[in-house]
Amino acid sequence: MSPRPPAAGPARPRRTPGRPTRDSADQRSHLLDCAIACFVMRGIGATSLRAIATQAHVTPALLHYYFGDKEQLLAAIVEERLMPALTLVRAPVAEAGEDVAELVAGFVNGMGEAIDRHPWLPSLWVREVLCEGGALRDVMFSRVAPQLPLMLAQRFAQAQAAGRLNPDLDPRLLVISLVGLTLFPAAGAPIWRRVFNADDIDGKALRAHTTALLDRGLQMPPGPPDLQEPEASR
Amino acid sequence: MSPRPPAAGPARPRRTPGRPTRDSADQRSHLLDCAIACFVMRGIGATSLRAIATQAHVTPALLHYYFGDKEQLLAAIVEERLMPALTLVRAPVAEAGEDVAELVAGFVNGMGEAIDRHPWLPSLWVREVLCEGGALRDVMFSRVAPQLPLMLAQRFAQAQAAGRLNPDLDPRLLVISLVGLTLFPAAGAPIWRRVFNADDIDGKALRAHTTALLDRGLQMPPGPPDLQEPEASR
Repeated sequence: MSPRPPAAGPARPRRTPGRPTRDSADQRSHLLDCAIACFVMRGIGATSLRAIATQAHVTPALLHYYFGDKEQLLAAIVEERLMPALTLVRAPVAEAGEDVAELVAGFVNGMGEAIDRHPWLPSLWVREVLCEGGALRDVMFSRVAPQLPLMLAQRFAQAQAAGRLNPDLDPRLLVISLVGLTLFPAAGAPIWRRVFNADDIDGKALRAHTTALLDRGLQMPPGPPDLQEPEASR
Repeated sequence: MSPRPPAAGPARPRRTPGRPTRDSADQRSHLLDCAIACFVMRGIGATSLRAIATQAHVTPALLHYYFGDKEQLLAAIVEERLMPALTLVRAPVAEAGEDVAELVAGFVNGMGEAIDRHPWLPSLWVREVLCEGGALRDVMFSRVAPQLPLMLAQRFAQAQAAGRLNPDLDPRLLVISLVGLTLFPAAGAPIWRRVFNADDIDGKALRAHTTALLDRGLQMPPGPPDLQEPEASR
């Protein structure tokens, strides 16, 4: 597809294409935001370029000018939004030393930051990876898996072999546990906030809870024996 | 709506309606199974009665005879399939004593049994509760929440007040953690089995991992000091 002159939407003055200007970069970025919002709300499969154009208050021709077809738009979202968001998780994990606590803190805090900066991440993941038939499952297998889950499972297996990790855990399932304790609670937040009337719990409180659970499980912290009840030390 | 004579599908001999026979109860149950399969695959919103009839090899009129419209069919699934499945989780939790380990084991094992018996449960939950706009969110708030999450959070809060639970945990978030360590990994199993080439991990292995993590977190078990590395005792 060769680029066509942009048909500027009602919100923008008409202009001819040329070198990307600051303005056109902003508009492209805005269109990616609108596409993500539509994909999160209705699903990638059910969203047309026309629906995204409506959401963005531009013509479908402008979307076509910037991205080509829907498949190319999705590829742009993966390259320019999804993978950079995951780098926020991957970088602190890759940089962590051999200590398991440091590795896990890197994941938990990195995921927290990725979600804070990109609030669409949990919903998009639920709809397009976790749901059967999700449009990003292949991206998960081909792009994300080698960079994050497989690398993390390998680090856990090494730590376990060296006696630095609870030997009753499965290193692969521990990766899934971490996702279930970070990305899943973020995706379910609208539900549990309402169920528990829990607007007092913010991202920081969630991370503190998660870290406490991963650190020593359900048990009471070590302390003088006379302060602990018998049930607490199984 | 008044019941109409059933228009038997191609797989069944033509007959007139009357008292429910064993055969008609079986057929009704088969239709519920087919409806759930369609709902899991394509979503409740995107599934027509006609699509369910096609899946079940019956006419839409027969579905209409048994259930009325789609809304009534969904209500039947909630009453006859979803709530009974959740009873498998709720019962062992309600029967557990004050010990937190017993309470948590009741949830983990009950959820495991519910998923084993009703393999559609995790996928339906992801698509219709966790996804924005899911058709079962209201059922979650009105029916499920009081019976399970709220009851469980209250039990955890009592245990924590009595000093029988890690004081750094949030009793409400602990309920979400348990869902994230049981129902979420079941929903994501097709993904992580492929990512990790992990067909060796069955439901029992998953529960053993989860119990170990909840029991004492990432740390090494208590043992003679000379067997533990310094990093393991943070």
